[in-house]
Amino acid sequence: MNINGTPYRTVWMANENPACVRIIDQRALPHRFEILRLQSVAGVCAAIRDMAVRGAGCIGATAGYGMVLAAREASPEAFDADVAEAARALCATRPTAVNLAWAVGRQLQAMQAGDTPAAKIAIARQTAQSIADEDVAFCQSIGRHGLAIIREIASRKRGDPVNILTHCNAGWLAFVDCGSATAPIYAAHAAGVPVHVWVSETRPRNQGASLTAWELTRHGVPCSLIVDNAAGHLMQHGRVDLVIVGTDRTTVTGDVANKIGTYLKALAAADNQIPFYVAAPSSSIDWQMTDGLKEIPIEERDPQEVLTVRGTLEGRAADVRIAPDGMQAGNYGFDVTPRRLVTGLITERGICRAEREAILALFPEKSS
Amino acid sequence: MNINGTPYRTVWMANENPACVRIIDQRALPHRFEILRLQSVAGVCAAIRDMAVRGAGCIGATAGYGMVLAAREASPEAFDADVAEAARALCATRPTAVNLAWAVGRQLQAMQAGDTPAAKIAIARQTAQSIADEDVAFCQSIGRHGLAIIREIASRKRGDPVNILTHCNAGWLAFVDCGSATAPIYAAHAAGVPVHVWVSETRPRNQGASLTAWELTRHGVPCSLIVDNAAGHLMQHGRVDLVIVGTDRTTVTGDVANKIGTYLKALAAADNQIPFYVAAPSSSIDWQMTDGLKEIPIEERDPQEVLTVRGTLEGRAADVRIAPDGMQAGNYGFDVTPRRLVTGLITERGICRAEREAILALFPEKSS
Repeated sequence: MNINGTPYRTVWMANENPACVRIIDQRALPHRFEILRLQSVAGVCAAIRDMAVRGAGCIGATAGYGMVLAAREASPEAFDADVAEAARALCATRPTAVNLAWAVGRQLQAMQAGDTPAAKIAIARQTAQSIADEDVAFCQSIGRHGLAIIREIASRKRGDPVNILTHCNAGWLAFVDCGSATAPIYAAHAAGVPVHVWVSETRPRNQGASLTAWELTRHGVPCSLIVDNAAGHLMQHGRVDLVIVGTDRTTVTGDVANKIGTYLKALAAADNQIPFYVAAPSSSIDWQMTDGLKEIPIEERDPQEVLTVRGTLEGRAADVRIAPDGMQAGNYGFDVTPRRLVTGLITERGICRAEREAILALFPEKSS
Repeated sequence: MNINGTPYRTVWMANENPACVRIIDQRALPHRFEILRLQSVAGVCAAIRDMAVRGAGCIGATAGYGMVLAAREASPEAFDADVAEAARALCATRPTAVNLAWAVGRQLQAMQAGDTPAAKIAIARQTAQSIADEDVAFCQSIGRHGLAIIREIASRKRGDPVNILTHCNAGWLAFVDCGSATAPIYAAHAAGVPVHVWVSETRPRNQGASLTAWELTRHGVPCSLIVDNAAGHLMQHGRVDLVIVGTDRTTVTGDVANKIGTYLKALAAADNQIPFYVAAPSSSIDWQMTDGLKEIPIEERDPQEVLTVRGTLEGRAADVRIAPDGMQAGNYGFDVTPRRLVTGLITERGICRAEREAILALFPEKSS
């Protein structure tokens, strides 16, 4: 999407010699826009591990490009062993990131078709580009399908903007471009359908305030920041027409694990008859799980994230403490929104109800 | 309540010559415990206006004591006029604080019974003490009634602590002592009933993280801080036995206006069959209003509170910015929890359902 009028992706391979991987350094957002130049596998590993890139699609694509550097760094004498070693290093940076292991595995398999190191490097480069382009295409499909929902609401609003609430960052920064939950929003904006986005700050790590707020304002989409507490009040007073959130994991039965606080927004949407959609690329669907509340493990994180808040002070990053000394804290990364609160899933193949039959009707190859 | 073993009130008149008003400076919490010495009406006005004291009961009692200083400062020649002038100045500090105008009015009326300035000063001093003591007695009554709810839950927990979730600060810092929502908690703690409190931070002003967390830890009540987003997840997983919150205004029909985010917690409590009680001193009940959502005005506050977070950095107060430049924000102070989500009101006269007939049965003198 655009940053002050210039189109960007979150990760790309620059046409320079030697080719290197470029990423937007998301740790510096929303206060500084910085592009990092990664020239080695070690640099890519550090960028993933230190969360300069984050988000399923973005991590996967970055790892895909990282494998190009791995192939280029490998010695001709021990090419396959060197590449395998680099692949292990990449996968170890974020062991729970499914897209990372998937992208690295796809590269290893693709490179087998090459006869020489040079051929394998060329294949890796083409595969990395495909991984990134496919991520964009999936998000664009979600955008097209979601746009229909926004258009339908807009048709009842007589030119007033459609007010869309989102949580956390399932935006283009989490993918290669467009995002998942934001894809319909960007599609509407591009189509001239007036939208306004309520961005909930998403404590404790404030991905809404720092990432979603940044990407929407830089692209020129009207939006307002709210505290997570405010969603219910806005819905009670008709100020929200539609909720769209992302998902970290979706059961085949339609339960949705997403950033902590999503469930509260889903409850408020249901209580006020507001449609609550989840942008769910099929890569987020767990085809085995049937009960999200019982089966999806919820990560407990460092209490320091709750006891402090990160922001900027006089142009520099700063963590302020908000609690008294001696205070304990609980820090839960995600919650599960039961399918009964989900109006529908927006997948790359279309929209469906959050239930097994409807999901499998869109993805019949997963029935077994 | 206790601060590291020593009992305190939020405001009191010290036995010194000349008598002065002492308050806990709540602006310095949770990072510094400071007592201010107010020697003049001007000092009391500044303390109320600058929010060194806040909370309905605490503001009312402080104004009551302020009127003692007003009587002492008044010239014998123009005593009534001087006192009236001071009364106006006090009332102007927080024009919407109902308890403030009520305490000042009560003092003006009480002083009319005195023949001389000296007699009026003595009456003012006695009245101020009564206002503070009655506030404490009301909170203690709420504590006694609420304790029965906690005891009943404890009887099913086989010695495990009763997990109570609260929001914002309806603690002793908001009153003279005990608090409203916290009164049952302190009563249980005193009675040896094991409790653990989930303190939600309460963005944007973080009264949970800064005030409730401070008063509970200093009194020795086990507690943990959570982000506002986490309440639903904890409730889904059986980690919350009871919710008790305060109220800024309660309609005679049982709708509850309280700090923004209360409604979301009430929805989650209802969705998980967890009792949701509101500690509602009768002074918070609006005997005319019947529809909280339509009638209670919701204050919109400075967007800066949302765009920034206040905390401490290296021992000093600091506001960090969490949003990109150019970002707009909406900041709503309160939300309304409809009576259907409220299990009961805990008043100083007992517990009742959140509906007109039940409320008026406890306060028959308000029927008309």
